[in-house]
Amino acid sequence: MAVCAPIRILFFLVSIKLACGGKLLVFPQDGSHWLSMQSLLEKLSARGHQIVVVIPDENMLFNDLDNYTVKEFSQPYTQDVLESHFKEGTKHMLTNMPILQKITKLYKQVTSTSALLLASCESFLKNDSLIRYLEQSKFDAMVTDPIFPCGDIAAEHLSLPTLHFMRGVPFGMDQEAAQSPSPPSYVPRFFTQHTDHMSFSQRVKNFIVRIADYFIGRLLYRPYAKLASDFLKRDISVMDLFSRASILLIRNDFALDFPRPVMPNMVFIGGINCANRKPLTKEYEKLVNSSGEHGFVVFSLGSMVSELPMEKAMVIAKALGSVPQKVLWRYTGKAPSNLAENTHLVKWLPQNDLLAHPKARAFISHAGSHGIYEAVCNAVPAVMLPLFGDQMDNAVRLESRGAGVTLNVLHMTSEDLSNALKTVIEDPSYKKNIEHLSALHLDRPIHPVDLAVYWVEFVMRHKGAPHLRPAAHELNFFQYHSLDVIGFLLLVMITTLFISLKGCYFAFRRCCGKRPRPQSKTKSKAKPE
Amino acid sequence: MAVCAPIRILFFLVSIKLACGGKLLVFPQDGSHWLSMQSLLEKLSARGHQIVVVIPDENMLFNDLDNYTVKEFSQPYTQDVLESHFKEGTKHMLTNMPILQKITKLYKQVTSTSALLLASCESFLKNDSLIRYLEQSKFDAMVTDPIFPCGDIAAEHLSLPTLHFMRGVPFGMDQEAAQSPSPPSYVPRFFTQHTDHMSFSQRVKNFIVRIADYFIGRLLYRPYAKLASDFLKRDISVMDLFSRASILLIRNDFALDFPRPVMPNMVFIGGINCANRKPLTKEYEKLVNSSGEHGFVVFSLGSMVSELPMEKAMVIAKALGSVPQKVLWRYTGKAPSNLAENTHLVKWLPQNDLLAHPKARAFISHAGSHGIYEAVCNAVPAVMLPLFGDQMDNAVRLESRGAGVTLNVLHMTSEDLSNALKTVIEDPSYKKNIEHLSALHLDRPIHPVDLAVYWVEFVMRHKGAPHLRPAAHELNFFQYHSLDVIGFLLLVMITTLFISLKGCYFAFRRCCGKRPRPQSKTKSKAKPE
Repeated sequence: MAVCAPIRILFFLVSIKLACGGKLLVFPQDGSHWLSMQSLLEKLSARGHQIVVVIPDENMLFNDLDNYTVKEFSQPYTQDVLESHFKEGTKHMLTNMPILQKITKLYKQVTSTSALLLASCESFLKNDSLIRYLEQSKFDAMVTDPIFPCGDIAAEHLSLPTLHFMRGVPFGMDQEAAQSPSPPSYVPRFFTQHTDHMSFSQRVKNFIVRIADYFIGRLLYRPYAKLASDFLKRDISVMDLFSRASILLIRNDFALDFPRPVMPNMVFIGGINCANRKPLTKEYEKLVNSSGEHGFVVFSLGSMVSELPMEKAMVIAKALGSVPQKVLWRYTGKAPSNLAENTHLVKWLPQNDLLAHPKARAFISHAGSHGIYEAVCNAVPAVMLPLFGDQMDNAVRLESRGAGVTLNVLHMTSEDLSNALKTVIEDPSYKKNIEHLSALHLDRPIHPVDLAVYWVEFVMRHKGAPHLRPAAHELNFFQYHSLDVIGFLLLVMITTLFISLKGCYFAFRRCCGKRPRPQSKTKSKAKPE
Repeated sequence: MAVCAPIRILFFLVSIKLACGGKLLVFPQDGSHWLSMQSLLEKLSARGHQIVVVIPDENMLFNDLDNYTVKEFSQPYTQDVLESHFKEGTKHMLTNMPILQKITKLYKQVTSTSALLLASCESFLKNDSLIRYLEQSKFDAMVTDPIFPCGDIAAEHLSLPTLHFMRGVPFGMDQEAAQSPSPPSYVPRFFTQHTDHMSFSQRVKNFIVRIADYFIGRLLYRPYAKLASDFLKRDISVMDLFSRASILLIRNDFALDFPRPVMPNMVFIGGINCANRKPLTKEYEKLVNSSGEHGFVVFSLGSMVSELPMEKAMVIAKALGSVPQKVLWRYTGKAPSNLAENTHLVKWLPQNDLLAHPKARAFISHAGSHGIYEAVCNAVPAVMLPLFGDQMDNAVRLESRGAGVTLNVLHMTSEDLSNALKTVIEDPSYKKNIEHLSALHLDRPIHPVDLAVYWVEFVMRHKGAPHLRPAAHELNFFQYHSLDVIGFLLLVMITTLFISLKGCYFAFRRCCGKRPRPQSKTKSKAKPE
């Protein structure tokens, strides 16, 4: 035991040092991504770490920042531009239009969002005084959300070990960068809405998407590679940026997600957002307790969608009026004229706290990853109206477990929504299935927040986790897949076969073939005679 | 919070039920494998679980069984046969002989060991009263060491969810059965002594071994498939048996092992054996404290090798006499005549407790997985004399980290051993490197014993872990590797290309080619005129 003493003392001292003076740089993403990262940062701050958060001055959801040192950089557009941009996007998603027009609009929306975020990143990297401040501050590590690799560019510049706090990066680039194999035969690609059990035609689609992802991902993220190369003054690819993370803190859990190969530096912290739990206010407590034996329904389409076109709102309001439950609907738009008495519009609601109430009967959600995990944590079956991003795939995961029903928000009628709501409330299998999921999800050796805190401090203590970095990073495509080895072995086999056949042929000719013209020899010999 | 109450109460009740009356069937393997499994079973027993251990009546190391219900089955050979069999094997390993003779001896040794263990398994499965007892006992789960899948056959018969407690199964069958990808380009195969950084020729060898493993594994384990099929009265493959495990408790840690893809049901508990720690007896305490500033060296070749040919023993004794440290050598053979004063022969030594002493300077080991982890836990650099099994590969792992030196026990001279010992003791890089490994290994969110206990209880609570079973199990080789999809897409591409080319050719002929013989038309028309 005693030989460990120096190590333990060292550990203890490092722990004390970290607990008193660990210094963490945080580069978060705006929107709901920030909300779950807060659970981690709050605990790290409570453990005495000094946290510096870098955010744009014009933003949507960066709040509760009192415990951190906040460093702002100027956003090259106003908050109004940002908000109207997202509102416009939501409007398109909720409007029926021909498929070609829809794709064009979506493409424009994606490229303009990327352009906005790229401009923001550029503005950050050009902020000399902020960059100088970051250079001079002695950080132990960085936590960043890698959906756009701006934080990674700064981390590379500052030579900081990094943790990615993430749900995933589009086009499977996170998995690729981590060298995690994703056989397309049973690992569904994002945006395909497949489960892990695919028919032949689904496997064909999944395979094609796998290949397309490879090229589209690199194409769409190329501007970041250019930006990084310019800033760092050397060529760097976007895959280099993504793959530099020491630890990936992934907001996923295999109780809900489909089991697949993972890498040793992947840490699963799905449901970390469920830790944000407070008692209900008196007002809400009174409201939900008045719902009687039927209980209540929580309805929210997430932080980005708080109002709807009136036509859609009326379709929904009619459906909500058809159930005996009280409905708490987070909605900031104009109240639809057909709003029933059981439906209460609120500008904001404590979603997780409400779902945790024993009278919560169902959750109508856009199937964002946070909402889905809150449904699972609290064992409340869901009706899902996915809108964009990973929401369709989240919905597939819950629906394939028999714990929710998915509707197409564009085409659904009042009857569809009403029926779906009644189904998940009245058919006991939904409650049973979500309780089963919940039991699996909540049965873990360590809470996701504590696990995330542990790994952040690990990276701070050990200046990264190079022992978890697979040697695959040093192989090119051909080497990784042993294509050069297969080529070499084929060459050896073919050469061996060729030489053997030639040898056999030669031996056969020697043994059994005609002797080379003995007559002519006789003739030529005969001539001089 | 309140909605979780029913789930929590259920959990609580299940926990209480398990804590009071969980019933576990254990099918261990003899030898050092048993020693580390004991750490887990002791804790499970202390938590109130009833543990039934099934072992052969003739065995080597099954001891400390007081806390368990022990069920013995008759071994079809005596302990003398068993011990002399292993002694014979050790003798061959330690004797210089031509390579061909060595391979023949090794092959005979492997097949005869397999035959002994198979006969033992057969004897167990034919023990009707024991099988009936197991059928009637209501077990919650089984823990078994899968190096030979006898426990799995019983678990399949009893429909019991199973945990594999293991270091690995030969020929990578554990990885294959778990559907864990093992790219041969950077995942070294066992018995190759490669690291994860391989040259081209090493990758060629690794690739060939990968393919050979596939066939050799199935060939060598075939008798178990036959035995299982006869016993279960239906066809079952050995891969079916290996792949039925819910959770793999793997005695490995990526501080020491090379990072590679893993599956969500793999739990890494490397170093679990370090938990077996007791204070030194007064006798040992006095002995090691008398070693002065130079400290002492611990020397053991594992539980299976306690004596050596006299010639080899004298080579070693000479080397041990050349260092200023005291040497504690676990040795039951006749003392070599050149034994120096600093060397103390003991019949058994508390290896982990001695290595934990601050005066321990080096560890001479056969590089068994237990010893290697004890070296790492206690940060003691090692001189390794690997003999068989995974020992060469364990040695490569420690040596490649600069924390140990490997010698060929057959060819080493006294000078080799003496120099190696002086190197690891006097060159500070070895101590520094093993301290670094130790710091990484010991820095974990939960102790390996607690983690193993947690997962055993998880499997007992949830009757397995089907949510962690990848869908890959339902795919055949062609489907898994998308070969059918690739074939289909190639067919579509070739057909499309063919039709396009034909179309182009036809269009070209129509547009630019010669008109079909206008003259003959005129001629034929002309004729009737």
